[in-house]
Amino acid sequence: MSTHPFDKALALQHSDIRAGHFTGATSPDYWNMVGPFGGVTAAIALQSVLLHPDLLGTPIALTVNFAAALEAGPFDVQATPVRTNRSTQHWTVQITQPGTGGGAPNMTTTATVVTAARRQTWGESDLPMPADVPPPEQVERFSIGPSGVAWLDRYEMRPVSGGIPSRWDEDLRHSESRLWLRDAERRPLDFASLAALSDVFYPRVWLRRAKHVPAGTVSITTYFHAGAAQLAEVGADYLLGRAVGQQFFNGFFDQQAHLWSRQGVLLATSNQIVYYKE
Amino acid sequence: MSTHPFDKALALQHSDIRAGHFTGATSPDYWNMVGPFGGVTAAIALQSVLLHPDLLGTPIALTVNFAAALEAGPFDVQATPVRTNRSTQHWTVQITQPGTGGGAPNMTTTATVVTAARRQTWGESDLPMPADVPPPEQVERFSIGPSGVAWLDRYEMRPVSGGIPSRWDEDLRHSESRLWLRDAERRPLDFASLAALSDVFYPRVWLRRAKHVPAGTVSITTYFHAGAAQLAEVGADYLLGRAVGQQFFNGFFDQQAHLWSRQGVLLATSNQIVYYKE
Repeated sequence: MSTHPFDKALALQHSDIRAGHFTGATSPDYWNMVGPFGGVTAAIALQSVLLHPDLLGTPIALTVNFAAALEAGPFDVQATPVRTNRSTQHWTVQITQPGTGGGAPNMTTTATVVTAARRQTWGESDLPMPADVPPPEQVERFSIGPSGVAWLDRYEMRPVSGGIPSRWDEDLRHSESRLWLRDAERRPLDFASLAALSDVFYPRVWLRRAKHVPAGTVSITTYFHAGAAQLAEVGADYLLGRAVGQQFFNGFFDQQAHLWSRQGVLLATSNQIVYYKE
Repeated sequence: MSTHPFDKALALQHSDIRAGHFTGATSPDYWNMVGPFGGVTAAIALQSVLLHPDLLGTPIALTVNFAAALEAGPFDVQATPVRTNRSTQHWTVQITQPGTGGGAPNMTTTATVVTAARRQTWGESDLPMPADVPPPEQVERFSIGPSGVAWLDRYEMRPVSGGIPSRWDEDLRHSESRLWLRDAERRPLDFASLAALSDVFYPRVWLRRAKHVPAGTVSITTYFHAGAAQLAEVGADYLLGRAVGQQFFNGFFDQQAHLWSRQGVLLATSNQIVYYKE
């Protein structure tokens, strides 16, 4: 069996694993327009923590700041456990690329990660899955044809509502999308792919304005609400994703995203702030 | 005129301002139960960036990870501009305290900040202020009497709904609060105080369960949707705050918060993930 493209994209080598230093290379499979799909960059930052031998527990929170687009080629990841408590652990991560002409490394990405050894407690959801959503089998798959945007082909997306506008007619509308999604080539859900899936929602400003303005994520924060057992229950099945914009002001807007299992378990909540023009 | 307690709490000295190294001391005025009020710690992290001579623009995003409670006493803040682009800037911040017995410094807080030079653009809100809220003058001020929790006395809170349960009867309910709030001692709103105000909402698990379990914020992310002009328009007036829980699972839950000006301008959106027991 060949390696899944996501696992290829996340492949990290280590020269000194205890020092948390890893090397990898950008993946053409997940290329976006001017750099890798941000979700994969977020997943790589998380993966460096998950590979570290000092890891305590499972991911709780991940913040990734996209300081600059990665260029195609090799990169370095430095994961540092800056504080380990009895049941929680705090990490900083930085992704850099070699500087041109032997210059200083190029800082492309900063991240912080919180991991924790969870304990069984009371639990409840105040964010139930939308009730009026048809099952994925009844929803048509989104296809934009040969877009030249490689990462879009790595996901199977079945928009229930709020699909990408087919006409850019600048007709003001809402900013909410609901869609079923999973890896196009089946792959059991794990924390890294959940981190990536949290970033698949296209910029809300395009939907809100039905206008295709330049836009790009500046920072994303994802909270994980699942342990290994909850992820295993999903396997390679669809997740229901929902994304909605919040405030659009002078060049930046924020959007939230929620990801439920088909059974209605809220696995991740995510927020991002996005640069936009005009 | 005496210095406002918030400005005292945020007072930072610098030995080498270009190196981004500052020193300060915890404030008894904003003491919580086992450390300073997290909102003030977040504000201090932001303030170190705002004081830095290399600052570009105004705050867009702030993530603060509470790795350990600060102890009463002095602390060090290191603010580092890790990447400066044409219109955005990325920062890392760490707060440490001197180690005991001359040991290694104690890492208490990590943070990342994005700042940017905003440009005037199209704008809109998809998160309007709740329409059915009486003005602050018609809402009674929250007072819990001598609580021994100093920071609570620094804010004037007027809960419209979802006040802290008066009886811990474990009656399951919703997790939403709406309240008017401002500094008890008037102070014009700025980015630092907006960062602090984003963290005033008590743990949603207390409301959801009407049960007072141990709980503490692990990580908070705040997005700023205002420039200096929008803050100046607020002055020292009330903000309407709304907080609601999302997912409660095995020891951690997340809650979102929104802060509007009285005129209905959404100034900040914030999310945090909170540790809880039982």
